[in-house]
Amino acid sequence: MEKEIAVVLVSGGMDSAVVCGIAEKKYNLALLHLNYGQRTEKRELKSFNSLVDFYTVSKKLVVNFEHFKKIGGTSLVDENLEIPIGLSGGDIPTTYVPFRNAQFLSTAVSWAEVIGASSIFCGATEQDAAGYPDCREEFYTVFRKLIEAGTKKETKIEILTPLINLKKSKIIKLGTELGVPFELTWSCYRNNDIACGVCDSCLRRLRAFKEAGVEDKIEYSIEEHL
Amino acid sequence: MEKEIAVVLVSGGMDSAVVCGIAEKKYNLALLHLNYGQRTEKRELKSFNSLVDFYTVSKKLVVNFEHFKKIGGTSLVDENLEIPIGLSGGDIPTTYVPFRNAQFLSTAVSWAEVIGASSIFCGATEQDAAGYPDCREEFYTVFRKLIEAGTKKETKIEILTPLINLKKSKIIKLGTELGVPFELTWSCYRNNDIACGVCDSCLRRLRAFKEAGVEDKIEYSIEEHL
Repeated sequence: MEKEIAVVLVSGGMDSAVVCGIAEKKYNLALLHLNYGQRTEKRELKSFNSLVDFYTVSKKLVVNFEHFKKIGGTSLVDENLEIPIGLSGGDIPTTYVPFRNAQFLSTAVSWAEVIGASSIFCGATEQDAAGYPDCREEFYTVFRKLIEAGTKKETKIEILTPLINLKKSKIIKLGTELGVPFELTWSCYRNNDIACGVCDSCLRRLRAFKEAGVEDKIEYSIEEHL
Repeated sequence: MEKEIAVVLVSGGMDSAVVCGIAEKKYNLALLHLNYGQRTEKRELKSFNSLVDFYTVSKKLVVNFEHFKKIGGTSLVDENLEIPIGLSGGDIPTTYVPFRNAQFLSTAVSWAEVIGASSIFCGATEQDAAGYPDCREEFYTVFRKLIEAGTKKETKIEILTPLINLKKSKIIKLGTELGVPFELTWSCYRNNDIACGVCDSCLRRLRAFKEAGVEDKIEYSIEEHL
């Protein structure tokens, strides 16, 4: 029997790569990437394309969202705001992109409904994450209801967030078992060439690899903060 | 006291114009229009800009979504599919754009959160409409929960759908009382110059004006179907 199709949201980061590794066991992969004017747009797209090459992919779609720059309100796209150095904690950091994941997921649902995919995979993590409201499990629980309410009666699309309750170190261990090519992925919020090693996203990644006892093969410009 | 800001989703059709007329009574208007590669994109944008000129608007945002053409699956953007002639009924017509309104609303929420708008107005109608699943009241009920789950704790954004249970003829009567400039609006799915008069959207509009006893001042190429 032909495998069912799963749309996988692939940012190019380590979590989305692990999700590809999980999803490919059971599904034909349809990989979706969204550029939204973020500083590391080119580097993340490169990682996405590397993952498309690495995995057996039946469909891919790259969407260019220009309006995030017009809307602003986040240091990831607004060059007038600084990306904070150091680990975030407590308050929602300026790297929060308002309601971004709702836009991404809605796009994924539109595509899934047209290509007949039965599932959408998303690498959101609530544990050990920066506290973005649209990465919480509750958000995905409600989104499942939205799909039921807003698509055709015969459309059944499940949203799967297999990493939502995992610590990042656990995600790395899982990815290592699955043979995920972490060296192709990109996490840094600031740089497109060598990862800065000091932004929230780099620090979470570095800490997680250290805790997992796995070598992170990408290059960092600063690592003494560890 | 300064009025609160409301984002209004304005397609350029008659319903969204009436919603502007309702919202301007209590709010500073922030009008949002989304181009998505639909056949009548240019004409609808023209109507949007006319409404921006007509109403007192504090902000406007035009978003270009290129990906709907890539995704396809709807006769509104796919030139290989024909737009049906005649009133739809029963099944969901090919003019349904999968999960479109979820993408539009998500964009509105992102913008609303950044500009501090307290409300989003949307002219969706469940009554007397083409049966699109993302125009049903239930969809908006769930979407309200999604906003709560997916935005900052201090963010409170209400979604208002004042037309959801009104028949189109009632909407026209209401708009007439409010002085809504229906002659600036566009409903036709097929043409950019003179409304076809025979697509589902033209037929619903023509029927509604007739029922309301109000003259529709836009030009139609065919009207003998009435």
